[in-house]
Amino acid sequence: MSTLGKCIDLLLTRRSVRKFKKEPIDMNTILRILDIARWAPSAKNLQPWEFIIIMDRNTLRDLGSLAFATRPLINAGAAVAVVVDPSLAPITYLVDGACTTMYILLAAHALGLGAVWINALRYQDEIRKILNIPSDKVPISVVALGWPAETPSPKPRKKLKDLVHIEKYGKKLKY
Amino acid sequence: MSTLGKCIDLLLTRRSVRKFKKEPIDMNTILRILDIARWAPSAKNLQPWEFIIIMDRNTLRDLGSLAFATRPLINAGAAVAVVVDPSLAPITYLVDGACTTMYILLAAHALGLGAVWINALRYQDEIRKILNIPSDKVPISVVALGWPAETPSPKPRKKLKDLVHIEKYGKKLKY
Repeated sequence: MSTLGKCIDLLLTRRSVRKFKKEPIDMNTILRILDIARWAPSAKNLQPWEFIIIMDRNTLRDLGSLAFATRPLINAGAAVAVVVDPSLAPITYLVDGACTTMYILLAAHALGLGAVWINALRYQDEIRKILNIPSDKVPISVVALGWPAETPSPKPRKKLKDLVHIEKYGKKLKY
Repeated sequence: MSTLGKCIDLLLTRRSVRKFKKEPIDMNTILRILDIARWAPSAKNLQPWEFIIIMDRNTLRDLGSLAFATRPLINAGAAVAVVVDPSLAPITYLVDGACTTMYILLAAHALGLGAVWINALRYQDEIRKILNIPSDKVPISVVALGWPAETPSPKPRKKLKDLVHIEKYGKKLKY
């Protein structure tokens, strides 16, 4: 198998990690991840994204206290908020922002870091206030990052045959 | 460097490939890609996605004739339409669908296939009609797949320092 062929494991072994060791992450590691995330695809290559690196413990605690789902941020080594610009890419800003977030998760995994995607769309106003994000920009995700203190088992997935249609919607795969 | 560490190349060497060789892609290869795409993350692990595998040349030509941007489908070996369900994941169906599309692109690249993400959101109604997709489901992407007949150079990307804020939006990185 080719070198890249072995990289299918990168996709299959990524997990959402929510428990982190106390060791900090250095800024250069985070910048390396974002330097990879720059290379995510986007519609018309518009790259309608920006990143906020958060290492301040008070800010992480404020973000982590918003809801049950944001709690992994409280003990994260750092976080990255992905902010997108609807005026730059009105139809695709959400999918573009998802692609660069996906790159952050995979790059973190490649470097041995744990990460979990915190859905920021549900708490846009609160996150805007904490991070001083202008009202015309959309925080799509906050990725909690840290050295993993757990190795989660894979979550169940729907079966391939229940997801696949052949040629037209409704013609299910038979095998 | 670890095995997964080498996989950063998977992320950095992916390109949008729009020219394909005439050789067909066999169904098992496409199923293998979708079997990987199942493992993309989604909010609350809801997996609000389905896939339509398209190999019929008439259907590929109909999809490819919709607009300039869809033209790579005409000569693609096959295509996969990603369809998402807003009723299942009202806030996150677009980002979830983007994640599994990203997995399709990366899995195809790992297997040596070329691929390009065709934005389906602009042509939802036309694509629904061609593929018999119910009106309550959203075609988010159509991925054109084929053995690559071009090796595109990397497209330019914005500079890291222009994308990164430190702690709060507006505090730019200095280095």
